[in-house]
Amino acid sequence: MEHPENDKKYKGLMVNEGVQNLPSVNPYATFHRQKRTHSAQEYFEGIRNGDISILGQAVTLVESSLPADQVIAQKVIELCLPFAGDSIRVGITGVPGAGKSTFIEALGTELCQQGKHLAVLAIDPSSERSKGSILGDKTRMNELSTQANAFIRPSPSAGSLGGVARKTRETIVLCEAAGFDTILLETVGVGQSETAAHSMVDYFLLLQVTGTGDELQGIKRGIMEMSDGIAINKCDGNNIERAHAARVSFKNALMLFPPSQSGWTPDVICCSSIDHTGVQDVWKNIEDYIAFVKKNGFFEHNRTEQSKYWMFETINAALLNGFYQNEEMQKLIEQAEQQVLNNEISSFIAANNLLDAYNKKK
Amino acid sequence: MEHPENDKKYKGLMVNEGVQNLPSVNPYATFHRQKRTHSAQEYFEGIRNGDISILGQAVTLVESSLPADQVIAQKVIELCLPFAGDSIRVGITGVPGAGKSTFIEALGTELCQQGKHLAVLAIDPSSERSKGSILGDKTRMNELSTQANAFIRPSPSAGSLGGVARKTRETIVLCEAAGFDTILLETVGVGQSETAAHSMVDYFLLLQVTGTGDELQGIKRGIMEMSDGIAINKCDGNNIERAHAARVSFKNALMLFPPSQSGWTPDVICCSSIDHTGVQDVWKNIEDYIAFVKKNGFFEHNRTEQSKYWMFETINAALLNGFYQNEEMQKLIEQAEQQVLNNEISSFIAANNLLDAYNKKK
Repeated sequence: MEHPENDKKYKGLMVNEGVQNLPSVNPYATFHRQKRTHSAQEYFEGIRNGDISILGQAVTLVESSLPADQVIAQKVIELCLPFAGDSIRVGITGVPGAGKSTFIEALGTELCQQGKHLAVLAIDPSSERSKGSILGDKTRMNELSTQANAFIRPSPSAGSLGGVARKTRETIVLCEAAGFDTILLETVGVGQSETAAHSMVDYFLLLQVTGTGDELQGIKRGIMEMSDGIAINKCDGNNIERAHAARVSFKNALMLFPPSQSGWTPDVICCSSIDHTGVQDVWKNIEDYIAFVKKNGFFEHNRTEQSKYWMFETINAALLNGFYQNEEMQKLIEQAEQQVLNNEISSFIAANNLLDAYNKKK
Repeated sequence: MEHPENDKKYKGLMVNEGVQNLPSVNPYATFHRQKRTHSAQEYFEGIRNGDISILGQAVTLVESSLPADQVIAQKVIELCLPFAGDSIRVGITGVPGAGKSTFIEALGTELCQQGKHLAVLAIDPSSERSKGSILGDKTRMNELSTQANAFIRPSPSAGSLGGVARKTRETIVLCEAAGFDTILLETVGVGQSETAAHSMVDYFLLLQVTGTGDELQGIKRGIMEMSDGIAINKCDGNNIERAHAARVSFKNALMLFPPSQSGWTPDVICCSSIDHTGVQDVWKNIEDYIAFVKKNGFFEHNRTEQSKYWMFETINAALLNGFYQNEEMQKLIEQAEQQVLNNEISSFIAANNLLDAYNKKK
């Protein structure tokens, strides 16, 4: 196995080996805490020194649901925050079969060879490590995983989307503080995770493949309109002509969309992860976008809005969870739903009855 | 003024005259309560008898913020509920200048002449009656307002979107119980009201006009994907060719969208409210859609989902309002926002601090 050692910081560290040794990969991780021997300050210093093993352990803390771990994790994040933010964050989505893994493999390897420090993360609330979630199947990223300056981390394990998203967003902070200047964030393209991913990246890429019209079957409505660019993947073999035709169709369609807040006009680019064609063009487009929005001020504006968004999202989730996760309320909600469906009471009266019951309990 | 009296129920009642005499049009309405002399049962009976004057007064109660009015209003709604639901509910949106009012005037007049009982409502949280909100400017619906079987009601006056939307949804219940079989619901097309409108109609129509590429400037992203059909309005004079070209473009674009949950493929139809061309085709499309979704079960499914949606929306709004409308919290929120923007604390720590403060106060 080849070890490009173009950066002493990461010398001798095979990222995925590091990750493999972390408790997070072990489903019984929470019962084996002997690994955590660091204080928040030690984690912070390790991260700042680019120690990938320490970074991996800190991410495991962030992902842990143990209150004791969370206390340390939050301290580490607080220490890292002033050193975070200096990266390009790119979200990548597409239906299963769009070739996300091979695309990230191709793009990521190229970025690493350019000397970039690349962190590849994922949001997939349905993931369970044992079931081979996205990014979990490392055999699919053979080449990228041997790059010394790549840090690949599967999605935090199954949980609420809010929880999984929060952990991913905090992991971005740690990665940036560790010196990673490029973050690729993969989502599955069929659920709610796209909105979450979109709310923590600078550029949102939709990966499409051509087909017989069914190619969009799995993509949720609205995702096309939130994309900053579309890549038509698998533009190779006898698929090239179709991919170029699809490119024209998508380009025409995008022109009918209302202009985005950023002022940017999304482009559609053909690429092949296998032939390694067009992948550079996609990255060029991302760089052009970043330059464009840094110039017009949208970059900063968007990051600020995202920070506020996550503060309010967290508050809202906590306020709502108190209601919906209450067992007694769950029974009452079920009854009320039935009454509404039978047209016995209006949606609003049902809601008020439930709120009255909730307020009496408190 | 002509009074078509093809339905005895509405004989001699000029709807807008009725509305004009209602306290709701008077900004000092709440200080003149002598008008309300009915019990909930009397309102209910009047509504069921198709007494438009009583219906108008009941809607005013629904829109009132006085607790005493709300008690009666909720009783009236409860009585009406078993008689509601038997109508076609159509949402109509488009940017200012798309010609919504003239389109509704043309379509509505035609539907009335076909013998339909038509209620025209609006959601515009920014509206203030004195400022000539949508549907408020009755001179724009001259012809429709003379139809005996049309009930035109401006948007409930300014308030939170949730509040305005709730009142509109309850007004639909009253209108349906009064025998109105067709509901047109207008929104302004530039704000959050579209999601609210979309969540209470069976068919969502986007009204577009052709132009030089700026025509979409005001339409929020995502609205095109939530439309069940697009009408290219103002297809008249020397605009006809451009409108037909736009139709083709939109049709191609829609084909790239993922299929909608209903299984329906949205169509794009050219029309002119002035020449009265295509307006019938738009309605035909709506009727085709309704037949289609009634057959495949989506109609009922969607209505059920909408009822649940509004129950949960109401609960969520109440739970969040307790936090955000608290004056002390508002100060703390402002401080926390600043800390997040200065990268002093993470979005999540800020949120937790605020939640701690909130829970201590309770």
